[in-house]
Amino acid sequence: MRRKSYADMNCSVAQALELVGDPWTLLIVRDVFWGHHRFSEFQERLGIARNTLTDRLGVLVDAGVLVKSAYQTNPERFEYRLSEKGRALAPVIITLMRWGDEWSDLPEPPVRLVDRDTGTLLDPVLIDRETGRPLDEIRLRVVPNPEAQGEVAP
Amino acid sequence: MRRKSYADMNCSVAQALELVGDPWTLLIVRDVFWGHHRFSEFQERLGIARNTLTDRLGVLVDAGVLVKSAYQTNPERFEYRLSEKGRALAPVIITLMRWGDEWSDLPEPPVRLVDRDTGTLLDPVLIDRETGRPLDEIRLRVVPNPEAQGEVAP
Repeated sequence: MRRKSYADMNCSVAQALELVGDPWTLLIVRDVFWGHHRFSEFQERLGIARNTLTDRLGVLVDAGVLVKSAYQTNPERFEYRLSEKGRALAPVIITLMRWGDEWSDLPEPPVRLVDRDTGTLLDPVLIDRETGRPLDEIRLRVVPNPEAQGEVAP
Repeated sequence: MRRKSYADMNCSVAQALELVGDPWTLLIVRDVFWGHHRFSEFQERLGIARNTLTDRLGVLVDAGVLVKSAYQTNPERFEYRLSEKGRALAPVIITLMRWGDEWSDLPEPPVRLVDRDTGTLLDPVLIDRETGRPLDEIRLRVVPNPEAQGEVAP
């Protein structure tokens, strides 16, 4: 069913989905954001098969999203932390969470996002950095980037 | 490999991925955002098999993300538009695009996001609505929502 690879599409959304379009992958990244770092934690939280989890963690480490390091020797045990590339996925996780909060069948959002230092509840909104306008108030258009290489058909 | 359903996880990210965790699904939604509405356009742009495309469009219509309507009779032809629930996916598409722009192997972003009315280039950033602070400058924590139903283990 699934095309072999989205990587040949000249599109940043497709490129991103090439890596994070597998639901397990993004749920593992979510768990690391939420403060979980170990194989056994992922396994328990996700109810995922060991071999599937091993595979997805390998994909994420190979892609440079997670960094694997030993936290114990004899027996050696590893934990997984977000790289800079992985931390840059925060807006994707947060916007997915907000959409699920609003549009899924869950009666209430299961979790809330707070400022760790102040405890204040956060209300994430996507704006244009220059004007400060919320993007949902702007009529958007995508245009080809003149500096881009290859054919672009937005 | 894939778990049957993420819908039983009490988590809005998992709920969102239940629907949009399939890469084709999100690429179709992207195409509709970009202004494409017809089966033949999706097929050509995505290089997707007819039966797969039919299936994914059906999933998106059933989920209330896309609205299907006839734009021609004899032969009857349909187009697909975003519902309110579908338009609410814009932040997910945009944050995925920005992550791909920055972190994929594409040398330059293929497309740019502009204000349709002014033509101004947009630079989307996720902030806290109350304070205006960019979320990447805030140390985040997730906490259980006291109003949520069911067990929550963030």
